[in-house]
Amino acid sequence: MAVNIAILGFGTVGSGVADILAMNGASIEAKTGKKIELKHILDLRDFPDSPFASLVTHNADDVFEDPDLQIIIETIGGARIAYEYTKRALSKGISVVTSNKELVSTHGVELLKIAEDNGCSYLYEAAVGGGIPIIQPLYRDLAANKIVRIAGIVNGTTNYILSQMKDNGISYEEALKEAQENGFAEADPTADVEGIDAQRKLSILSTIALEGNYVSPDEINAEGISKLTLDDIDFEEKAQAELKLIAYFENADNGAIAYVAPTYVARGNLLASVSGVFNAVMVDGNALGVSMYYGKGAGTMPTASAVFGDIIQAAVTEGHPAESRLWKEGSVKLVPYADVKADIVVRLDSKADELLKIFEGYSPVALDCGDAVIVTSITHGEADRLCAQADGAKWFHILR
Amino acid sequence: MAVNIAILGFGTVGSGVADILAMNGASIEAKTGKKIELKHILDLRDFPDSPFASLVTHNADDVFEDPDLQIIIETIGGARIAYEYTKRALSKGISVVTSNKELVSTHGVELLKIAEDNGCSYLYEAAVGGGIPIIQPLYRDLAANKIVRIAGIVNGTTNYILSQMKDNGISYEEALKEAQENGFAEADPTADVEGIDAQRKLSILSTIALEGNYVSPDEINAEGISKLTLDDIDFEEKAQAELKLIAYFENADNGAIAYVAPTYVARGNLLASVSGVFNAVMVDGNALGVSMYYGKGAGTMPTASAVFGDIIQAAVTEGHPAESRLWKEGSVKLVPYADVKADIVVRLDSKADELLKIFEGYSPVALDCGDAVIVTSITHGEADRLCAQADGAKWFHILR
Repeated sequence: MAVNIAILGFGTVGSGVADILAMNGASIEAKTGKKIELKHILDLRDFPDSPFASLVTHNADDVFEDPDLQIIIETIGGARIAYEYTKRALSKGISVVTSNKELVSTHGVELLKIAEDNGCSYLYEAAVGGGIPIIQPLYRDLAANKIVRIAGIVNGTTNYILSQMKDNGISYEEALKEAQENGFAEADPTADVEGIDAQRKLSILSTIALEGNYVSPDEINAEGISKLTLDDIDFEEKAQAELKLIAYFENADNGAIAYVAPTYVARGNLLASVSGVFNAVMVDGNALGVSMYYGKGAGTMPTASAVFGDIIQAAVTEGHPAESRLWKEGSVKLVPYADVKADIVVRLDSKADELLKIFEGYSPVALDCGDAVIVTSITHGEADRLCAQADGAKWFHILR
Repeated sequence: MAVNIAILGFGTVGSGVADILAMNGASIEAKTGKKIELKHILDLRDFPDSPFASLVTHNADDVFEDPDLQIIIETIGGARIAYEYTKRALSKGISVVTSNKELVSTHGVELLKIAEDNGCSYLYEAAVGGGIPIIQPLYRDLAANKIVRIAGIVNGTTNYILSQMKDNGISYEEALKEAQENGFAEADPTADVEGIDAQRKLSILSTIALEGNYVSPDEINAEGISKLTLDDIDFEEKAQAELKLIAYFENADNGAIAYVAPTYVARGNLLASVSGVFNAVMVDGNALGVSMYYGKGAGTMPTASAVFGDIIQAAVTEGHPAESRLWKEGSVKLVPYADVKADIVVRLDSKADELLKIFEGYSPVALDCGDAVIVTSITHGEADRLCAQADGAKWFHILR
């Protein structure tokens, strides 16, 4: 029996879902026993040249009043109209699959509850890591683990920009421009380069790692890459590390920690080898230990691949949706950023001796290069205070 | 309501399953709503000092005649008694979760059918890649993809031995002895070092990649690491690659390809950075593109973590087991190994010029080092024939 789906928002990801269905629909049916049928495409635009033109409608009622619809794919983005449509669908018992990290990270608590109350699913594998399976593995394959730590490269745009700065020795501004010209960065890159996109994704990962205890993006301290210079990139050699924008979560004894920050990742760590638009998420579970999930974090087909994984999940579990994965609000409070202890590297060109004095209390270790010291387990607040003393000293997180 | 389980074979993995339940049982119940209860442990031995001693029985009937048992964990290994017990359980509608790659790869077709016929599940995530989620992601998260290619480091023992040879400059024999002393290799290492273990795992991965068309281990050409020398390791620098035992699958136009062989993995490829006992599986899907799954490929807790993921999967889908994942026999034939085309590197100490002549027809490319050539897209058979002409020339697969 056919499973009828509709796509809301026929952009990059939405059109990829339709393309995958055309490309692999037959083998998907052979594998899963589910015939997925695309019935509607809701978009303000027309797509006269698309093979799916006949399915396009501008009238939401054509979608929501269709009694034979099982699954809606929300690839509109944003938290306004997408929010209204998602509530409307879930309230009717229609499962919703999305790649919308903003909506999931801001309204996930409410939307998952509505899904639960109406016996349908709200699935969002594609919201984090693009095509990389990470949400489902965390929920299901790692269910026997307490998640101790997560460190991820979850934004392809910034990782691409950092790789370009390094490989071509160009400034942040030049690299951003190049990324925009090649379609790897948006006209308004703010959400990516300021770490907001990573912040939303980390909110989702942290909430899952805390077994559904919601961590709002607003609680997560996020620093982007827009202030990074070529000096910071050049320092990679001295530090024997790669500078990456890392989304970090830790379930520490004194509470949960979550932040997004440029971080020097030691070259022994696999994350250091993740370059260009690729994403990777390192997960530390108390049974499994360290595992990593790597792949394309963006792009039409990769993201659509993840969306489709959820479509099939929703299809095969129809009538008996996956185990409850509700999020609970207000039950967890992150350790204030200033109080979070971290391992850092502090740079003050050709003045390591001065740094050694200033950070004396933390038994700093000088790097061979002579103008930087490693400080272990210092709070962010103290790092800021002491760097202020060392006029012009810059500190960064390090990940070993 | 409680889900009652029994463990058959209380060895490394079996005991780990009990340990995880003790360690994380409460949070597992909170997360999944399933209270997992360990009722029986079947083993020939007694475990007087184990906290689970009271659950140990030597009488299989205590397990199989228990009317309240939902899931059996088979961690006996081998394809004899484990085979009988698995059939007995599945025939009664009791789901079976296993880490037994030998049994799954040899009798998977029959056992999955019995499970299907009796409305229960036969799950084997832990059979490949130890704790790494790979089976479920292939089946579920990548379901929208046609799997084009798989390249995996799926045997921790051999990867550990190769790392030791490299890091300590010791011979294969010394490294094996060291691995045995440290518990990373068994007294009889044959299955690991001759590639038989990898062959079984590749049989499972290939069958899934071919959408259930069974590939028997016997069809898979497997070459191990027992003939590798320090010269082969030293060559890594010249080749700018790392020598790894790679389980390779390809869904090629002229048919399916699967083999296990020592392979020089270019350092640009993430697989080259996977060392020690770690495993990693690189998967190329026609929608997602390349993705990689990395983690601990063996060990008590990692493997038990994967087993437990399946226990929870079986628990939450009880009554309505996961979509049918039957295997079909006889529907696929691998391309004969001699006819498989591959990219190779051929070494003949200080005689690259001779090699260039012999492999002329394949426009060989000499490496800087002067004593090796790269030959692209040559059949294994032809490579053997031509190397025989170049007295003493050795060829290896390369992976870029």
